[in-house]
Amino acid sequence: MKAQWNIADWVSQICSGNRVALSRAITLVESQKASHQETAFQLLNALPPSKNSIRLGITGIPGVGKSTFIEAFGTILLEEGYKVAVLAIDPSSQQSGGSILGDKIRMPQLAQAPNAYIRPTPSSGILGGVAPQTQAVIQLCEAAGFDFILIETVGVGQSEVEVSQLCDIFILLMLAGAGDEIQGIKRGIMELADFILINKSDGDNLIKAEQARLIFTRSLHFFEQSAHKIPAQCLAISALNGSGIADFLAKTLDFKEKAILNGYWLANREEQSVFWFRNQLKKQWEAQLETKYKAQIQQAEADIRAGKNVLEALKHF
Amino acid sequence: MKAQWNIADWVSQICSGNRVALSRAITLVESQKASHQETAFQLLNALPPSKNSIRLGITGIPGVGKSTFIEAFGTILLEEGYKVAVLAIDPSSQQSGGSILGDKIRMPQLAQAPNAYIRPTPSSGILGGVAPQTQAVIQLCEAAGFDFILIETVGVGQSEVEVSQLCDIFILLMLAGAGDEIQGIKRGIMELADFILINKSDGDNLIKAEQARLIFTRSLHFFEQSAHKIPAQCLAISALNGSGIADFLAKTLDFKEKAILNGYWLANREEQSVFWFRNQLKKQWEAQLETKYKAQIQQAEADIRAGKNVLEALKHF
Repeated sequence: MKAQWNIADWVSQICSGNRVALSRAITLVESQKASHQETAFQLLNALPPSKNSIRLGITGIPGVGKSTFIEAFGTILLEEGYKVAVLAIDPSSQQSGGSILGDKIRMPQLAQAPNAYIRPTPSSGILGGVAPQTQAVIQLCEAAGFDFILIETVGVGQSEVEVSQLCDIFILLMLAGAGDEIQGIKRGIMELADFILINKSDGDNLIKAEQARLIFTRSLHFFEQSAHKIPAQCLAISALNGSGIADFLAKTLDFKEKAILNGYWLANREEQSVFWFRNQLKKQWEAQLETKYKAQIQQAEADIRAGKNVLEALKHF
Repeated sequence: MKAQWNIADWVSQICSGNRVALSRAITLVESQKASHQETAFQLLNALPPSKNSIRLGITGIPGVGKSTFIEAFGTILLEEGYKVAVLAIDPSSQQSGGSILGDKIRMPQLAQAPNAYIRPTPSSGILGGVAPQTQAVIQLCEAAGFDFILIETVGVGQSEVEVSQLCDIFILLMLAGAGDEIQGIKRGIMELADFILINKSDGDNLIKAEQARLIFTRSLHFFEQSAHKIPAQCLAISALNGSGIADFLAKTLDFKEKAILNGYWLANREEQSVFWFRNQLKKQWEAQLETKYKAQIQQAEADIRAGKNVLEALKHF
């Protein structure tokens, strides 16, 4: 294999399923270097359009069983002949630089499957936001022929809202009887969810899970579904014994069919691209202006430290 | 009483404890109108310096007992002769426009006390961030003679990080045995906390609360205390029966004394002012550039909807 490809070769390698070509392209797209970015644009522009995949965002608190769910759901997808990419937004704490269990340990079956591809994705900022390049990473995976892109994030602030802007279908995993008032914190996130899956609906937990499903189903009626034409659904599942997972896949495919028919599917992807454009434009402007006004900012900060009112210091910009 | 004051009169009314003058000043500072902002700057600049207050940020999931804690702690503060202001960051969901129970119902004793002042504070953005004017509202409360400023927020993403940038001492309320793995989500927030209070340490819950206190105390050792010279502390309390609350007050006063001695107290306030300056500068630039480049942004968004790559569209800005 050549150490470097030209753009056309590279794209053709990605599209023919060459893992090394895909991984290198993702590394390129995630790079902050200006020269890499120029090549990345060329590569992304040369990708064939691909709108057939399903982008599934998956969130839920630690302990809810996200890894087990992705293993179970991914295994069914593979059995059905789909190719599956898993992008795990790295939830490590920014302040202490903590790390997570390796993805290969978390999802041993998928890690070994030839039709699955698991890749950690860098997060950004103290609140664990999603790196702006993640949308481009998804496009690369789609060009490489993956039918399902599973984007996993833990429940840490901003990353959930941002992941909901990366996917066609946003899934919130929850537990029954684990203090619903505690999970009530997630109301803003529940409003973004297309599916709420009550996990660990097995063994002694079956009745509690069904009760939780009924309660959440009722509460979903209170949420506005403004941008969205298909009402959110709540299912009880067990990632452990697999119950409800095949049903969830059927409902996912049904969701896609309805959403394509009523126009939501493509309109949503358009809106998401506009979201990422605006999101990234802000960061770009910020970086430009911070460079341009470096001296004035330093002066203003010195004045503020000396007691100047913050709102007044802002008037000079 | 006059309908309007000049700045000097107004400041003197605020400093003498006139509630109407304080409330009007807060309304003015929170106003988005340019003419109001000009008057607000004059007012803020005319306030006497006040560094003696203690700004306590309080966060915790719904159901953890924040209102009960603020009632219990606030009542002790009043008994000790302190004046107490409570700023409640309104946690209503942006998408559905939900509302919360009135503060007077949530904190009935404080609401009636002549030396307490309760005021809801607007939040901003989908993640419930803190309005940039909140720091100025705190300054007004301090000028009005409040010794303790309690800033309350629910655990919704960004508001916690922002509240930690508004206070001298940041308190995380938690529950024992309510699924520690669920509360584990709060690791990024735990790292910001100066005190972790295990609430509902009463009745059957006493042993569980003490166990939780030991576990959290141990886990606190794993957090870096970079910007901070006083190690975080974990206490078991009962907002319901008041146990541990007087001890917490003693530890709060001790924290302040140590932090003033080692220089952290004032350095922290300075850093916070710089944080709010940067935070607000970004928003201000964004608003300016969005106006300036309105047509180009609209064109770029149209191009993106027509299929143009987001990263490439960004190159033109």
